[in-house]
Amino acid sequence: MERIAIGFLGCGNIGCGVYKLLETYGPQIEKNEGVAFEIKKILVRSLGKKRSWEIPEQLLTDDADEVLNNPEISIVMEFMGGDQPAASYMIRALESGKTVVTANKMALASHWNEIVTVAREHGAGLYYEASVCGAIPIIRAMNDSLQANRISSVMGIINGTTNYILSRMSSEGAAYEDVLRDAQRLGLAEPDPTADVEGYDAAYKLSILSTLAFHRHVPVESVYREGIAGVTALDVACGREFGLTLKLLGVAKEEDGRIQARVHPTFVPSSHPLAGVGDAFNAVYVHGHACGEMMFYGRGAGDMPTASALVSDLIKAAAQKRHGLPAVADEPCVMAEDWNCVHFVRMQAKDEPGVLAMLASKFAKYGVSIASMVQKGDADERGFVQLVFLTHQASEHAVRSALAEIDEKIGSVGSIIRVEGV
Amino acid sequence: MERIAIGFLGCGNIGCGVYKLLETYGPQIEKNEGVAFEIKKILVRSLGKKRSWEIPEQLLTDDADEVLNNPEISIVMEFMGGDQPAASYMIRALESGKTVVTANKMALASHWNEIVTVAREHGAGLYYEASVCGAIPIIRAMNDSLQANRISSVMGIINGTTNYILSRMSSEGAAYEDVLRDAQRLGLAEPDPTADVEGYDAAYKLSILSTLAFHRHVPVESVYREGIAGVTALDVACGREFGLTLKLLGVAKEEDGRIQARVHPTFVPSSHPLAGVGDAFNAVYVHGHACGEMMFYGRGAGDMPTASALVSDLIKAAAQKRHGLPAVADEPCVMAEDWNCVHFVRMQAKDEPGVLAMLASKFAKYGVSIASMVQKGDADERGFVQLVFLTHQASEHAVRSALAEIDEKIGSVGSIIRVEGV
Repeated sequence: MERIAIGFLGCGNIGCGVYKLLETYGPQIEKNEGVAFEIKKILVRSLGKKRSWEIPEQLLTDDADEVLNNPEISIVMEFMGGDQPAASYMIRALESGKTVVTANKMALASHWNEIVTVAREHGAGLYYEASVCGAIPIIRAMNDSLQANRISSVMGIINGTTNYILSRMSSEGAAYEDVLRDAQRLGLAEPDPTADVEGYDAAYKLSILSTLAFHRHVPVESVYREGIAGVTALDVACGREFGLTLKLLGVAKEEDGRIQARVHPTFVPSSHPLAGVGDAFNAVYVHGHACGEMMFYGRGAGDMPTASALVSDLIKAAAQKRHGLPAVADEPCVMAEDWNCVHFVRMQAKDEPGVLAMLASKFAKYGVSIASMVQKGDADERGFVQLVFLTHQASEHAVRSALAEIDEKIGSVGSIIRVEGV
Repeated sequence: MERIAIGFLGCGNIGCGVYKLLETYGPQIEKNEGVAFEIKKILVRSLGKKRSWEIPEQLLTDDADEVLNNPEISIVMEFMGGDQPAASYMIRALESGKTVVTANKMALASHWNEIVTVAREHGAGLYYEASVCGAIPIIRAMNDSLQANRISSVMGIINGTTNYILSRMSSEGAAYEDVLRDAQRLGLAEPDPTADVEGYDAAYKLSILSTLAFHRHVPVESVYREGIAGVTALDVACGREFGLTLKLLGVAKEEDGRIQARVHPTFVPSSHPLAGVGDAFNAVYVHGHACGEMMFYGRGAGDMPTASALVSDLIKAAAQKRHGLPAVADEPCVMAEDWNCVHFVRMQAKDEPGVLAMLASKFAKYGVSIASMVQKGDADERGFVQLVFLTHQASEHAVRSALAEIDEKIGSVGSIIRVEGV
């Protein structure tokens, strides 16, 4: 029986969850995996705080050195959250050859190169299943199941809060602000919801996923980001008429050696597996040339789903002959500055002869062709109607250029939403 | 760089796929994983056969000993299919301490105890991701991601042929026989479709999945099995009126220490993630107490998806400090002889006063309560109408006992279909 001493950085609800799982499943893990984990020290902010699971007082410390400088500890589990001091603690742990298991997407995505380099230089392991989509083993799939694949795209519902909001907007026709308020009341959205609704949280995760998918480091700053605050019930309803469901997707693709990594509201066909992912669930849809299409669905957040992933990483770390580290090419990643997709365009247009011809000629000028068009309702008091178009596959730059040329007196754009999975 | 010599047992389309992936991704695997695989010998049935990928002649042999007795070879990959000689070749390989990577659900499920025991006694590894659901990393998830979970249920669409047939019956209202003929013409069903449509293929996979989920050996003979040959377009249509979609599911549950493992046509709510799994796709839905609900979706068959899984197993086998083997309790598995679920019952009943009261009283006698009932169409020339019931959760034994008591002159049962995921 191998015995491994471990330390915790942080002991909030996730940390307590890990403690609880290790206590409960320790004997089973010893029997099945041949390894026993002993928690030596737990760094906490406040020694006296009431916790969700009873933890022996002598394990707690408020001095990070007692974990990081403890020569007995060979694996450090980090679930403090936030950028600092988590990132520098992880780096210190790796520098002393300790393996790090983390749930911290923000620190990992923001300091990716530094963290991975330090791990490599010191032969230390780095495990981060819990940092992306909670219990869903998507990191494991990318690193350990799809090695012999050329991955062409990764599309994911990787933020539960926004999926909850959009799912309710879809099912109830409710307005964004109303559902957000409800989500806040239910604890599904933060009092300041910016990180979720503006797509920052999804961008961290997509940076990690796309880096693994394409073996190039995709910095979080390179991820195009557009949140859901501008999404209207009208867009959701118009999309439904075209058989489309609105989701906040992280989309990563490689085309012609250029990488697209973008987080934005996205329509998917209502028959697409991602369309059926409701509530606060997460799902990641991957296409690889050998494996074909795959989807991984589950709870993307929550103490116990995250703890489940952390413990699986801990066991994996202990079982490896050598720690695999994400293989990233040396050449920098070339990000795409434009991409082709189907576009949903909703606009107010003057309800008079010749307007449609003018719109069509603007699109034609930029090589954009219209796949379908519907007019919603009758003209308002100013003589404007709602027009909704779907384009064929077209460059986003071309679509926006065409729309920019439309005279305000004749029409104005309400929204442009990308469509994927068609 | 570690160098590992490997041998193949079999070299049909899957074997050629593995060869191709190793040739294509070899350099990348060497760089990322620190291991190089060298194929030493390939057992084939016929040396001169034309193959889908060019393989150097000197690697081929029709003598199994050249693989099994080759002391250089430390990992044997088996994709011959069928029970024998595959099972005895695997056992021989394990006996000489070689690790086995296999895609063979039939041999593995049929000889589980013997194969696992031999592997354990000789410290050899046993990897079988490709044996269940092709590219979907469901074995990896069960063994390596959900170790710290008490799994309560596993429900899967684990046979692509039957899912293709049922999906088309659902979308087109077509008859079973017509779609089966089409599937045969398209190569999606075998000329003798028994293994798929009667649920044998799914039973092998469910035996493996439920053994891993509950840490008890669930022999394939203990899996309750009912195929789709009796399913009618009328049942599919009636189910839709209740918001239900018909699938052939493998269902495994543990309740009160008893294990249910059953393969049968099953209605799931049309909003359930499994309901949206169309075409020949596979998906496995798992519930664990820590991870919550998860679903894994993808291509359950095909040369390249299967080869993708085999190569991932090969890399995993090479990276392990010690080979984990499925941990199974010593006590034998107690199989449930009855189970509770919602039942869909379609019957012909005499269209006259008192019949419904009689039916209801039979159900009541056995403690079965009716959740809803619809009458389909008008009475036929004999004065019989189609009645469709949904029960509340009820023991299957009770439902069948109640129905057995119904006098033929008054009514006869058309079909009883279990409903899960409600």
